Amino acid sequence: MEKLTVVKIGGNIINNAQQLDHFLSLFSDLQGPKVLIHGGGHIATQYAKRLNISTQMIDGRRVTSLDMLDVATMTYAGLINKNVVADLQAMGCNAIGMSGADGNVIRSIRRRPQPIDYGYVGDITEVNHAIIKSLLSVSIFPVICAITHDGHGQLLNTNADTVATQVAIAMSSAYDVDLMYCFEHKGVLLDINDPLSVIQTITPGYFNTLISQEKIADGMIPKLTNCIKAIQSGVKSVFIGSVSMLDKKDTIKTHIKL
Amino acid sequence: MEKLTVVKIGGNIINNAQQLDHFLSLFSDLQGPKVLIHGGGHIATQYAKRLNISTQMIDGRRVTSLDMLDVATMTYAGLINKNVVADLQAMGCNAIGMSGADGNVIRSIRRRPQPIDYGYVGDITEVNHAIIKSLLSVSIFPVICAITHDGHGQLLNTNADTVATQVAIAMSSAYDVDLMYCFEHKGVLLDINDPLSVIQTITPGYFNTLISQEKIADGMIPKLTNCIKAIQSGVKSVFIGSVSMLDKKDTIKTHIKL
Repeated sequence: MEKLTVVKIGGNIINNAQQLDHFLSLFSDLQGPKVLIHGGGHIATQYAKRLNISTQMIDGRRVTSLDMLDVATMTYAGLINKNVVADLQAMGCNAIGMSGADGNVIRSIRRRPQPIDYGYVGDITEVNHAIIKSLLSVSIFPVICAITHDGHGQLLNTNADTVATQVAIAMSSAYDVDLMYCFEHKGVLLDINDPLSVIQTITPGYFNTLISQEKIADGMIPKLTNCIKAIQSGVKSVFIGSVSMLDKKDTIKTHIKL
Repeated sequence: MEKLTVVKIGGNIINNAQQLDHFLSLFSDLQGPKVLIHGGGHIATQYAKRLNISTQMIDGRRVTSLDMLDVATMTYAGLINKNVVADLQAMGCNAIGMSGADGNVIRSIRRRPQPIDYGYVGDITEVNHAIIKSLLSVSIFPVICAITHDGHGQLLNTNADTVATQVAIAMSSAYDVDLMYCFEHKGVLLDINDPLSVIQTITPGYFNTLISQEKIADGMIPKLTNCIKAIQSGVKSVFIGSVSMLDKKDTIKTHIKL
């Protein structure tokens, strides 16, 4: 099968204009079919603050009120997505920005309000791989933001790691998918204070060990859960690392393996 | 040639949730290939106010500062575009939202700063009709907002009427294009205070007469200039009217003819 690269970029890359530019030039240079997934970083939070929209947090997770959903839609699907697409176009990469509503590419269902009501947050139910494939077949590269829709007119805020995972899984029926989660570290760190303590390989079993030994930061657990799910659901290769892993010369990263 | 309907909706329709919903259901029911073009209405101005971004006006036209461009990008390409697309999807219309950067669909050049510097405003240089045609060929309907790009990474605010005109002209090589400008009146009014004074037909000659007799409101002149340009550049039919002109039963509207 043909290779497809699915890359997710984290908020800290989006927040830093220089890093984002470096990433986009590496992404632009990637050969073959590719899809970019992004969330929003601090930009949504900053606009919410300027608009006097308070961000309620429950257990460290943001509640998406209707006002906050509007801010997320404006920043993720508008400001960030369109600037990323314009930058890629300038680099000769024919990108097309999409939310989940566009071409009905990602459907979700609003998360049940029990036991905790996180507001307008969506859990993905379906990825329309046909439209992604049809765009890729004419060398148009989707840049998908973490806003999905429920098919009844409601947009929903969705975790960007999960969007990347579900897109990668859905595309695995037609491609050998390489899934790369790019963030601010070189990989998953055994010691958060030591940037050189990158764990080179994580298997599902080792992941459970890391959790039971409490060796892994809370924020990494959902990300790694996504990685494990991807590799267990037909995605060919899954990596976590810095943007330079798109550059073949740099090999330090975390490889998720079965 | 196959028929293509290009519809532009004005700000006052976008500002009114009930009218917008009515319009979208009529658009969704339109048979055959179709493209929707929209601007932003008051929503951008309201957000600019809330964000303490001052809107400088010169001769009744807004200057697009970098901050204002961000607000336009957020509201036109984000909030409005994605909600319109999600609503159309809910009605069974497979819409895809686009700015001019997406798929490189509309290129523009920043307007020269002499004699007046309107800021980050773009004049269209090229419409990529191939991507629109390719989406339509698989029954995906573009919903294009009035943000374009210069091909060097810069987004530019662009007049939505002009976007509609240029898209309609570009598509005329492959389709018999019906271009409809929907706004809050039944058509071009001879007396702005009399909603029944709709001018049924306007030709280029009559347009010049209306201007020289000062019978036409200032705001209508650029819109009618766009209409005349469209009909003189190969667009099959051009109409100005209310949203109900999408509904065949209602026939009051202004027809622009050669």
